[in-house]
Amino acid sequence: MRVVEIADRRQAALDLLVHYVRVVDDPRRVDEWPDLFTDQAEYLVITRENHERGLPIAVIRDDSKDRIRDRLVIIKEFWGAGGRSEDRHYNFAWPRHIVGPVWVEVQESGEAVLGAHVMVWGTGQIGGAPLLLAVGEYRDIVVFADGVARFKTKTVILDNPVLQDVFVYPL
Amino acid sequence: MRVVEIADRRQAALDLLVHYVRVVDDPRRVDEWPDLFTDQAEYLVITRENHERGLPIAVIRDDSKDRIRDRLVIIKEFWGAGGRSEDRHYNFAWPRHIVGPVWVEVQESGEAVLGAHVMVWGTGQIGGAPLLLAVGEYRDIVVFADGVARFKTKTVILDNPVLQDVFVYPL
Amino acid sequence: MRVVEIADRRQAALDLLVHYVRVVDDPRRVDEWPDLFTDQAEYLVITRENHERGLPIAVIRDDSKDRIRDRLVIIKEFWGAGGRSEDRHYNFAWPRHIVGPVWVEVQESGEAVLGAHVMVWGTGQIGGAPLLLAVGEYRDIVVFADGVARFKTKTVILDNPVLQDVFVYPL
Repeated sequence: MRVVEIADRRQAALDLLVHYVRVVDDPRRVDEWPDLFTDQAEYLVITRENHERGLPIAVIRDDSKDRIRDRLVIIKEFWGAGGRSEDRHYNFAWPRHIVGPVWVEVQESGEAVLGAHVMVWGTGQIGGAPLLLAVGEYRDIVVFADGVARFKTKTVILDNPVLQDVFVYPL
Repeated sequence: MRVVEIADRRQAALDLLVHYVRVVDDPRRVDEWPDLFTDQAEYLVITRENHERGLPIAVIRDDSKDRIRDRLVIIKEFWGAGGRSEDRHYNFAWPRHIVGPVWVEVQESGEAVLGAHVMVWGTGQIGGAPLLLAVGEYRDIVVFADGVARFKTKTVILDNPVLQDVFVYPL
Repeated sequence: MRVVEIADRRQAALDLLVHYVRVVDDPRRVDEWPDLFTDQAEYLVITRENHERGLPIAVIRDDSKDRIRDRLVIIKEFWGAGGRSEDRHYNFAWPRHIVGPVWVEVQESGEAVLGAHVMVWGTGQIGGAPLLLAVGEYRDIVVFADGVARFKTKTVILDNPVLQDVFVYPL
């Protein structure tokens, strides 16, 4: 690949990460979340311990685009306005990702490996203090087709094996 | 605008944000804070709930350069060495912003829209643990004149509707 | 220096910071830590109060490459598998740095001054919540030889004068 193309892919991967963070932190935009993945994609949430040991057991393994789309339905219908009213308070929290540092390595294959350290905070919409939900790392594979960058895999590695509160949105 | 000029403005906006963060986190440099704004400028702090609903009520609305300069006087004279000695402990905390991700979109008009996720910590100068004051987002408009980038508006959106402690410095 | 060279050094300094963070956050890679420093190097951890006042007393002052290498031995032998079994739990925590913003200024001399705001979290490997260990700032000098960027000095300024828990890894 030419140097210019590598630089372009690097920037496109960084932009994709920003797009992802803005979408998952904005309950009104969560509909856009599945479109950030390729048709064959995986969204994986795994504890750091299992990741380090190479153990396959994950907290979440949405191993197809259909499962990723299903998660969106669950967020909107089950936890959201379509579900039981007594469950709806679970998504009455403002999500907020703080991310950095971020790095991107464009591979010979043309794919980019993206890594980032990340924290996720949730703040109750009714007067609460910010609550730290998770500290961890993204390890993603970004691919490029027709000039668009998308996640082939998005892996969220959790330092804390359990989230510190109920949280319905994507990490 | 030419591609080179867009890239330059993008970098200048990113540099302005770094400059802002360094100034507001350093009590000795807080004098530089008003100079980061244009002559017609607004410094706005608003809760996420009000921002999302489009409600105009803000926590802070310094809607002119004079008000922005006045805030500096309040910080230095009222809370600082010029004020009552019993109030001075309020600024005996080290401020610290952690920021990321950051994005910049240069508009057709030549202005840049800058967004960033941000946390603000305060640590008591006498032996305290760091205290999380706020989690939120910057949504700023940056303009360029005579080769200098400045904030036309700086909007701080607070996920937590009230700061978690007294905090006298700019957010 | 030519503009291209300045841009290259800026990027190399940013990459070095990412490398540093990945190494210190990964107990399996901590062996790589001393190699990120030049042969005449200093690793300094100092409270913000002493730094601001220009006082020389530091929490850690590894003022030679030998001392930096010694620290690695201490981490691995004293706290780690080589030491007393009752001490080993001290390094049973996942470290995690969250970093941002970052800035780099390439000097006339060719050295780069790198600054960054940083938080360090530790999460117990056995079911704990993330614990905030430190909030502060990096102030580093990066030098370039044979195309490789290394730290000539790495200064960690701690807003909180004492770490909030035992922590054996480099900050």
